[in-house]
Amino acid sequence: MAQSTQLLGISNAIVDVLAHVDDEFLERIGAARGSMTLIDQERAKEIYSMMGPATEKSGGSVANTVAGFANLGGRAAYIGRVKADQLGEIFVHDMRSLGVDVRTPPATGGSPTARCHVLITSDGQRTMQTYLGACTELGASDVTPKTVGAPDIVLLEGYVWDIAEGPELTAKAMRLAKQSGARVALSLSDSFCVERHQQQFMAAVQDGVDIVFADEDEIVALLQVEEFADVLDALDSFSNLFVMTRSAKGSVILHGNQTVVQNATPVEKVIDTTGAGDAYTAGFLFGLTAGRSLADCARLGTWCATSVIQQVGARIEKDALAGFE
Amino acid sequence: MAQSTQLLGISNAIVDVLAHVDDEFLERIGAARGSMTLIDQERAKEIYSMMGPATEKSGGSVANTVAGFANLGGRAAYIGRVKADQLGEIFVHDMRSLGVDVRTPPATGGSPTARCHVLITSDGQRTMQTYLGACTELGASDVTPKTVGAPDIVLLEGYVWDIAEGPELTAKAMRLAKQSGARVALSLSDSFCVERHQQQFMAAVQDGVDIVFADEDEIVALLQVEEFADVLDALDSFSNLFVMTRSAKGSVILHGNQTVVQNATPVEKVIDTTGAGDAYTAGFLFGLTAGRSLADCARLGTWCATSVIQQVGARIEKDALAGFE
Repeated sequence: MAQSTQLLGISNAIVDVLAHVDDEFLERIGAARGSMTLIDQERAKEIYSMMGPATEKSGGSVANTVAGFANLGGRAAYIGRVKADQLGEIFVHDMRSLGVDVRTPPATGGSPTARCHVLITSDGQRTMQTYLGACTELGASDVTPKTVGAPDIVLLEGYVWDIAEGPELTAKAMRLAKQSGARVALSLSDSFCVERHQQQFMAAVQDGVDIVFADEDEIVALLQVEEFADVLDALDSFSNLFVMTRSAKGSVILHGNQTVVQNATPVEKVIDTTGAGDAYTAGFLFGLTAGRSLADCARLGTWCATSVIQQVGARIEKDALAGFE
Repeated sequence: MAQSTQLLGISNAIVDVLAHVDDEFLERIGAARGSMTLIDQERAKEIYSMMGPATEKSGGSVANTVAGFANLGGRAAYIGRVKADQLGEIFVHDMRSLGVDVRTPPATGGSPTARCHVLITSDGQRTMQTYLGACTELGASDVTPKTVGAPDIVLLEGYVWDIAEGPELTAKAMRLAKQSGARVALSLSDSFCVERHQQQFMAAVQDGVDIVFADEDEIVALLQVEEFADVLDALDSFSNLFVMTRSAKGSVILHGNQTVVQNATPVEKVIDTTGAGDAYTAGFLFGLTAGRSLADCARLGTWCATSVIQQVGARIEKDALAGFE
């Protein structure tokens, strides 16, 4: 009998189109450095036609985490919608080739597979322009007792609330997770996304979500506080596990009265920050499902994030644990 | 009025699917390390399903050279067939975004855009399994006085002789090139390709081709000699310009009684040799169309090859001349 799934991710299934750009390019398209903007198909064509030669790689925030988790040796499954086109084929291949059980068959109709134009500036920062395409057609009917199964952890991303049936399908996923005994984790995606859905995210954190992954901006936006220094106080009354990443300042993990502070690993040159948070989450959850301490989970998350920022692209291409001590 | 085209490439238009593999993988699929094998669509699906997560990038030997030439600042045009599918769109975008004038519209029918599975081993060597798809449907009717125009140089690749109308369309291209006053260059592609078409290649070199690009194995196969040491003698009676690359041993350029020997630049770690020869050709031709000496051309070719073997993928992504002195 097959071993049970440890991690099920439910998220937007996206292929990244990565290119180096200069600061002037961001100005020309009116994009704030480091932001993620949702764009329609027409604008996607326009942006793409302005970009230089690009590289295509499977992406998507929680999808990156699921792939990273599988690369670490974890047993993972995935729910997310692509079309049965060439980019959809690429996305599904890259998941399955890592052993991920993809539980949403590519759609034969509807919008094309999503693409995220990842614009990398010389500082390694990435600015994203995302055409959601087929992702927007993911529905509550894709989330069933059969597709959810009985994993250890169900991981959702904030971005899913942006799509039409997002609130309904995430509620259903949380209900099914609870019924199967799974813990629910939520990755907050980005601070603008948190601002769009703050009330819904807060309601989910207060009832259903066990583990929250956030960066500084996201947790500040969720708690509606002034700055990160106010976060610890604001979290005093919560019993959830909060995993907060702070880029070069490392990460802070909070669980009841337990606090773990993990330093970042200095790197010589940041090539591309795409996927740093996703890789951290993969490492952290891999440690957690293996029953490791929160400190070990933080160390493993940091290891994965450090690896991914020293390459172009959001997913570690080789054995992700190679060299970890 | 637009300035005239310097380089027109005619070749197989291919998207590379790059992945790291171990030696055991090559054994399992029965591929000789460093070889290029033509495969059909069914086998392509099989190989792909066995591969790990991959990265997609525009490729194709002479297509890489044309892109590299444009990246260096040269005025380039291109004839090669893709389908109007997502991979075809990627291929054409990556060319046009460098300013290359793509003169073959993506086909609305026929086979899908070609893909080359590039299997990279830990030594940086690449083994290729190529599904030619839409390339095989490039025809003599795609090569016309209008699409050829009047460039300084028309660059062909040996691989084009593998497709049904290859011999006819390359003959037509050479005729049109001569009529317009263009020089004809031929890149010999690989030694197995040379063995498949040795007589035709030799006939072309004796009548029509002005410049030959070859690595050691290719020139040995073309001249039907034992080893590279025999090449210089065998070339004694030829007046063509021969540009011969020898990997870590550098390159040798021969033109009548003029010989240039260029050393390779030592690199700390070879990441991926994909496109090394193509990049060399781009640099060399950029020097040549700019009226530089053969020694300068060789130095520029070496610079481009050195850059490309220190990254994954066959095309230099940023300003290819940055840092060249």
